[in-house]
Amino acid sequence: MLTLHYAPNSRAGRIVWLLKELDLPFEMNAMRFHPEDLKSADHRKRHPLGRVPVLDDDDVQIYESGAIIEYVLARHAPGKLKPAVDDAEFPAYLQWFHYCEGMVMPPINTIVVQTLLLPPDRRDETVLQQAKKLLGKALAPVNEALQNQDYVAGEFSAADIMLGHACIMSGRLGVVGDDMAHLTAYIDRLLARPACAEAFAA
Amino acid sequence: MLTLHYAPNSRAGRIVWLLKELDLPFEMNAMRFHPEDLKSADHRKRHPLGRVPVLDDDDVQIYESGAIIEYVLARHAPGKLKPAVDDAEFPAYLQWFHYCEGMVMPPINTIVVQTLLLPPDRRDETVLQQAKKLLGKALAPVNEALQNQDYVAGEFSAADIMLGHACIMSGRLGVVGDDMAHLTAYIDRLLARPACAEAFAA
Repeated sequence: MLTLHYAPNSRAGRIVWLLKELDLPFEMNAMRFHPEDLKSADHRKRHPLGRVPVLDDDDVQIYESGAIIEYVLARHAPGKLKPAVDDAEFPAYLQWFHYCEGMVMPPINTIVVQTLLLPPDRRDETVLQQAKKLLGKALAPVNEALQNQDYVAGEFSAADIMLGHACIMSGRLGVVGDDMAHLTAYIDRLLARPACAEAFAA
Repeated sequence: MLTLHYAPNSRAGRIVWLLKELDLPFEMNAMRFHPEDLKSADHRKRHPLGRVPVLDDDDVQIYESGAIIEYVLARHAPGKLKPAVDDAEFPAYLQWFHYCEGMVMPPINTIVVQTLLLPPDRRDETVLQQAKKLLGKALAPVNEALQNQDYVAGEFSAADIMLGHACIMSGRLGVVGDDMAHLTAYIDRLLARPACAEAFAA
């Protein structure tokens, strides 16, 4: 049995999206995005820093959204949502999957901290503007990669869940400008998928 | 033929380390860690933001160190440096592989920016100290995971290259304290591997 330890407006949405795309049954431990839940003794046993998502699969417990996606695909959905090793799209799949946390999420994290998490008197406008600029730069190659294709690695894949989730977050943070038409269309295309819409509505 | 586009003191060291562990022949395009090289028109054709590593494999070109590691293992070294899907260490391998960029590298990036890349008059001591604190917190679970094992997922694996590279960088940035004895021993253990030592000497 799969159990997802979850909080809204977090990377845990990626796992909801994945599991719904795959039509895999799972239970959800829905916590609030609040220290009382995430930093509780119970949750710190699952993740020492009190982060989500964490996935339980019988006696296996695993965290990091990218790791959970790879784990679920390998153990519960082999051959799905990921090009085969000899497929021409395999390198693009890997590249964009990892580009999400390597390039896109660091400035998103900073923007969230500087606009939502810190109290107003501790926010730093310079840090915020630098992060917005950096996020725009990081998204430009994604916009370009989508110029001639609907998804980042051929057919819809788990790379679109990882990176697409970060693109949708970027849109909500107001950083996807009118100059990024392909990225805007991509975000709309992803949100038209029922599994994605459900994950973002949760 | 594999060609690694490289600059010192970057994530490109992970790929040198990997290829030497696997004894795979490769050519190296050794650039300086300098805008004249990394932001050149030639290199921007390989990576639009002028980052390293980038790997060429005949007609394939791929960036993001985590993606390159997965690509090399899948196409050139199947079964090596990675537990099989049904191996009990498979979840730990994935978790720590992704923990590197998800949790450890963001504060490392900030520390490097605030101590090396920004001119002194643009550095922010508060941002630097917050990043050091965050990095210490991110490393604590790694230290704990190493309490009873030499490597993060059983035998030495590519997860030790990803995460170990970040741990070694953390040590050089002065953030691995005396309270992290397991992590300190791990760093020494990794640097005793010839492939690792060569990668960090390059």
